[in-house]
Parts: sequence; structure tokens; C-alpha cells
Amino acid sequence: MSMEALKERIVREGQGIGRGVLKVDSFLNHQIDVAFLDEIGRALAERFAGCSVTKILTVESSGIPVACAVSRAMGYPPVVFAKKAAPNTMVEGVYSTDVKSFTKETVSTIRVSRKFLQPEDRILIIDDFLAYGESALGLTRLVRSAGADVTGIGVVIEKRFQGGSAKLKQAGFQVESLAVIRSITDGNIEFQ
Amino acid sequence: MSMEALKERIVREGQGIGRGVLKVDSFLNHQIDVAFLDEIGRALAERFAGCSVTKILTVESSGIPVACAVSRAMGYPPVVFAKKAAPNTMVEGVYSTDVKSFTKETVSTIRVSRKFLQPEDRILIIDDFLAYGESALGLTRLVRSAGADVTGIGVVIEKRFQGGSAKLKQAGFQVESLAVIRSITDGNIEFQ
Repeated sequence: MSMEALKERIVREGQGIGRGVLKVDSFLNHQIDVAFLDEIGRALAERFAGCSVTKILTVESSGIPVACAVSRAMGYPPVVFAKKAAPNTMVEGVYSTDVKSFTKETVSTIRVSRKFLQPEDRILIIDDFLAYGESALGLTRLVRSAGADVTGIGVVIEKRFQGGSAKLKQAGFQVESLAVIRSITDGNIEFQ
Repeated sequence: MSMEALKERIVREGQGIGRGVLKVDSFLNHQIDVAFLDEIGRALAERFAGCSVTKILTVESSGIPVACAVSRAMGYPPVVFAKKAAPNTMVEGVYSTDVKSFTKETVSTIRVSRKFLQPEDRILIIDDFLAYGESALGLTRLVRSAGADVTGIGVVIEKRFQGGSAKLKQAGFQVESLAVIRSITDGNIEFQ
């Protein structure tokens, strides 16, 4: 997929709200265009070609289909998704960390079963959006709790003005974003 | 995928808990084996071959990857996933209904944007599990709120002893389950 196809789709169907929110509900976050998702998966996989990835880690919910599409394009490494709540069916030991959402003004705990992250794992972190980077940083903490390596962080849409990629790059991570948004002003979307 | 392959996987990796809970966290509900997921998608798509499906409806989170796999096998009808919370980015009109979870002993509201369900839609409902049928029934209510048709309900694993499929069939829906579990007793899984 060309970056242009994704940008065009964001411009045509995306909805900027205020100064910080972008809704892409028609193809990624509520309704999913699965053919387009597969192209997104291939494009993200290309960015990490040559990295030997043993697992892909994401967080529920909208990260899951993106992570599965990347897995498919990478020869099917397992996808693990961190959970935001602790259902009563999750009984064994978990790695957990708190993640702040600036958009929703909440703090949530994300958890992953210890058995699905091993010290020898090389983890690719995938998400739909990169904003303030809190969610991605939380996922890197889960990986490091397991003694595993983060091979990189790949996202579909980065809102660069919210500073997440700068934070992650400063921490030493390779960050790849298919579309980078410079600003959202009164709902107007400007790309980098 | 043969039903046998799925059953074997459930026996080998699934964890029955008490008299009602089945965890298949190693390939479906926490870690996802995406190659196996694609086989599941093809098997479910076959069950509804010939139905003209315009959209696939599921509910977050673990239903999403299954729905995407079915979409891929059906020539890419859009997937819509109902949301369990109302994030502040979801501002337009929604269809909503309350769904009881017997497992978690909670009631949650599931919502879908009105713009993603149209009266002319023929909706295939897909989920990972069918237990008491409350979630699937909730999804059928959302479809009917929009004046659209339910073409059928497809799930990966049905716990028949919890009565969901009987309830749904009585309401006139075609229900297709790839694996049907008759009982879970002291963690022991018996198939139909």
C-alpha cells in the first residue's frame, strides 16, 4: 500500500475533532475494511523486514486486527494482545502496568499472561494509533518485565504533535508509522 | 479446517475451569495463532456459503479477529464491531442494547454507530464463543434496530450446555458452531 492511499482515505473518511482527536471509524476503529487492513499489514511488515520477530504484541481492541494482518504478512508469528480488564477467567500470573489515556482521561491496567512472553522473545509492538505514546510505552514495559526484546513499534496512524514517537525514539525504540499527522486544528487534518 | 483439528487443539491446549468456563488463551482469546485463525475463518465462511452477506457484525474484543478472518474468506464484506464502552470519540447516533454476562456477572451496554447498519444490510453475526447466547441476542437486537436482516450466527466454540444455541434457534436464527461442547465437569471437556 502506498502511503498516499492511506492519507487519501484519512482525508476522505477521517473526522478530525477539536485539536487532538481523529476518528477513522469507517475503515479501522469501528467498521473495518479487511482488504485495506491486509494492505496495511503488508506495509507495516515491510518496515520491519529483516528483524527476526518471534511474536507480535498489541492491546485490545482496535490493535488486534492490525496485529493479525501484520502477522499474516510476516509468516504468522503469534499475536498476543494485552487485556485492559481482568476477567475472572484470567487466573495465572500476569505482567501488568498502568497506562494513562490522555484522550479518555483515564488510567487503565493492561495485562498479559506470563506464559505468552518469554525471555528469548523478540517482540514487535503493533497498534492502530500512536498519540502520546503511553500505550506503546506500557507495552514495552510488559515486554521488558518478561526479559524479552522489543524489535520495534509499528503503527498505522501517528499523531506526531502529541509527542509519542519522540518519547519512544528517545527511549531507543525503532518507530514506524504509515501515516504521520502534523496537526489537527478545528477538525482540519494536516500531514507531515 | 476439519472439526477434528479444532477439537484436538481445544483438548490439547484448552483449560476447562469448574463447570462452565473454557479458556483457549493460547490460540484464540489472548494469544492468537493467525494461520489457524484463517482456517477457522474459511470453515465458518463455508457454513454460510450462498448467503448474500453485506456485513459481518461482532463485538469487541476476541470476536474481532474471527470476524476479520471470515470476511477475508467471504470476499471482504466489511466487519463492524460493537463497542462495549462509550469512548468520548463516539458522538453520533448509536444503536445500543444491554447484554448480561453470566460468566463475569455483569451487565454491559454494547453500541454500534447507526451509520454502519443500514436497513438493506444482510448481517452475518460472528463471535468466538457461544455460551448463554446473551451477546449474540444483543447483536441481533442491534441489527433489527436498524431494520436490517440477520443471515445467521457463526461461532468458533459453542458451550451447548449453557443453552445459547437453543435460544437463538428458537428465535429463528441459523446457528453454526465449529466445535460443540456438551459439558465441562471439573475441568474435563466433553464434545457433543
